[in-house]
Amino acid sequence: MSKFWSPFVKDLVPYVPGEQPKLAKLVKLNTNENPYGPSPKALEAMRGELNDNLRLYPDPNSDLLKQAVADYYGVKGNQVFLGNGSDEVLAHIFHGLFQHGAPLLFPDISYSFYPVYCGLYGIPFEQVALDEQFQIRVEDYARPNGGIIFPNPNAPTGCLLALEAIEQLLKASPESVVVVDEAYIDFGGQTAISLADRYDNLLVTQTLSKSRSLAGLRVGLAVGHPDLIEALERIKNSFNSYPLDRMAIVGAAAAFQDRAYFEDTCRKVIDSRDALVGELTARGFEVLPSAANFIFTRHPQHDAGELAAKLREQGVIVRHFKQARIAQFLRITIGTPEQNQALLDALN
Amino acid sequence: MSKFWSPFVKDLVPYVPGEQPKLAKLVKLNTNENPYGPSPKALEAMRGELNDNLRLYPDPNSDLLKQAVADYYGVKGNQVFLGNGSDEVLAHIFHGLFQHGAPLLFPDISYSFYPVYCGLYGIPFEQVALDEQFQIRVEDYARPNGGIIFPNPNAPTGCLLALEAIEQLLKASPESVVVVDEAYIDFGGQTAISLADRYDNLLVTQTLSKSRSLAGLRVGLAVGHPDLIEALERIKNSFNSYPLDRMAIVGAAAAFQDRAYFEDTCRKVIDSRDALVGELTARGFEVLPSAANFIFTRHPQHDAGELAAKLREQGVIVRHFKQARIAQFLRITIGTPEQNQALLDALN
Repeated sequence: MSKFWSPFVKDLVPYVPGEQPKLAKLVKLNTNENPYGPSPKALEAMRGELNDNLRLYPDPNSDLLKQAVADYYGVKGNQVFLGNGSDEVLAHIFHGLFQHGAPLLFPDISYSFYPVYCGLYGIPFEQVALDEQFQIRVEDYARPNGGIIFPNPNAPTGCLLALEAIEQLLKASPESVVVVDEAYIDFGGQTAISLADRYDNLLVTQTLSKSRSLAGLRVGLAVGHPDLIEALERIKNSFNSYPLDRMAIVGAAAAFQDRAYFEDTCRKVIDSRDALVGELTARGFEVLPSAANFIFTRHPQHDAGELAAKLREQGVIVRHFKQARIAQFLRITIGTPEQNQALLDALN
Repeated sequence: MSKFWSPFVKDLVPYVPGEQPKLAKLVKLNTNENPYGPSPKALEAMRGELNDNLRLYPDPNSDLLKQAVADYYGVKGNQVFLGNGSDEVLAHIFHGLFQHGAPLLFPDISYSFYPVYCGLYGIPFEQVALDEQFQIRVEDYARPNGGIIFPNPNAPTGCLLALEAIEQLLKASPESVVVVDEAYIDFGGQTAISLADRYDNLLVTQTLSKSRSLAGLRVGLAVGHPDLIEALERIKNSFNSYPLDRMAIVGAAAAFQDRAYFEDTCRKVIDSRDALVGELTARGFEVLPSAANFIFTRHPQHDAGELAAKLREQGVIVRHFKQARIAQFLRITIGTPEQNQALLDALN
């Protein structure tokens, strides 16, 4: 604490991201990265941008990428917002759309950055308990609120909420913005963007860090009604005119344009997930039904913290959260078949 | 305006960056980019990073770059903060260090993003008039304040404040953070980082967009007392864990390490500036003394808006601000000798 700090700074409890180890040899199944590299076309587009033009500012509106996203989803450019990773997009959403009197609602088991944003912007919130099967019960959200946000599939559970349930949420809170955070949607769900034209209170966020294998490039997006997008643009243009650099704009646009590679790698991850779930189940693990590129699992006879430590000793990193309700679970990113086998071997 | 917006959003007056034209043929002297490309070593480092590892998150602390900056300036790593361009760094500074009761002070002629940040974070401010020669009078800042910020050299004037005057400011407001925004310092000034160990209320910001020719890559930094840096880290880690992508980290680090290229290109820009000032003066322009990679100039017989329009017609873009006190000035970025000649030709 310093006398120079703005008063709220001392109470901030920052988010702690999963470890980014500097040892190359580890089997890294802790931060839900894609085991396959980005589209070769994305790398090629970036190579074409790697030249003296880096002396020039990027397009502040990233129109090339905005159009690629709009084309992909069949929406208009003014329904698309872009940011430096979906974390930045989420930050602007909390700031610009959730500062109302009533509390923001999100699940008790959810992305642990949400309460951090609330701390940053002074937003009251209430955590709504998942049911015993770790599912979202939409009826629990039908009460006064200043907004609703949840990941779909949820993190760190991997459980998917159906589009009909999302519509129920949207209808029950027509005066609030409902944000569906679809970081993992491409591994087994259907995007709610198909509802964007019918609900003016829906905002869908996505990232290029998971299904598009560009975590290292930092690109995220939101799609929704132009009025919601306008709030985000106003904030972005009052914060940082150019959050996306030249490499990110062309790389992300090319990744969106390369559907074949995207679909192929998503399919491989889904197949690996199904195989891994089978193997773990055979070893006595309980695995929550996952529509994501990770699984959430516990073993009735083994302490999760000890399992994580044992895996780490053998060079496999997974994520273990200490929060009470999920302290006996491990979140394991789906790797290549070889990485998954290394995990299984380390468990023996 | 939408019922979904947080209340402050409707009053935001976003920053308007200089135009980034999509026509390649223009002589672009409007956004103070460097006419020379980035260090070849920076491009090489980025080429080495352009591979499948982009599927992985970057180092959230950007330690490689933090160390490169610390080594360059002879400070410790915990005195360095990094962000997605100095605009993001400034945003976090306004949020985390300027929210106090008393008004923030900055010059009336200054970086026009400052009042925008104040709008974003609800910070009261007072603009302190430059003197008749467009110079900062430090004695005018010796009054109750919640912080002080100014560019040095100032923008858009290009005028430099000496280190002794900065020390006077630091001593007169020991309870406030004084931010010296050194976007243009390498083109003719001395950095105030040399004072960082003696004043716990000093924070210096810099960008890689100007002297290091990496506007397209989005990297900025702040150097100051570890307590001030800690406030910024807390905010950054409550906002976006990974604001710098993998390309930016390695490219910026390599740019800092390549002193020879940096010094050579800065020297060329300074020489071009001196030559251009001579030519413009000979044509009857008044030019403020500039320590930046741009000049601020007016012609007693020609309207600045008309001059800008006439230049634009001939394919040369410069920046014209409509603010009353400077409406008769043009801000002209220093280009290559060829670009400067194109400007002079267009004026004939």
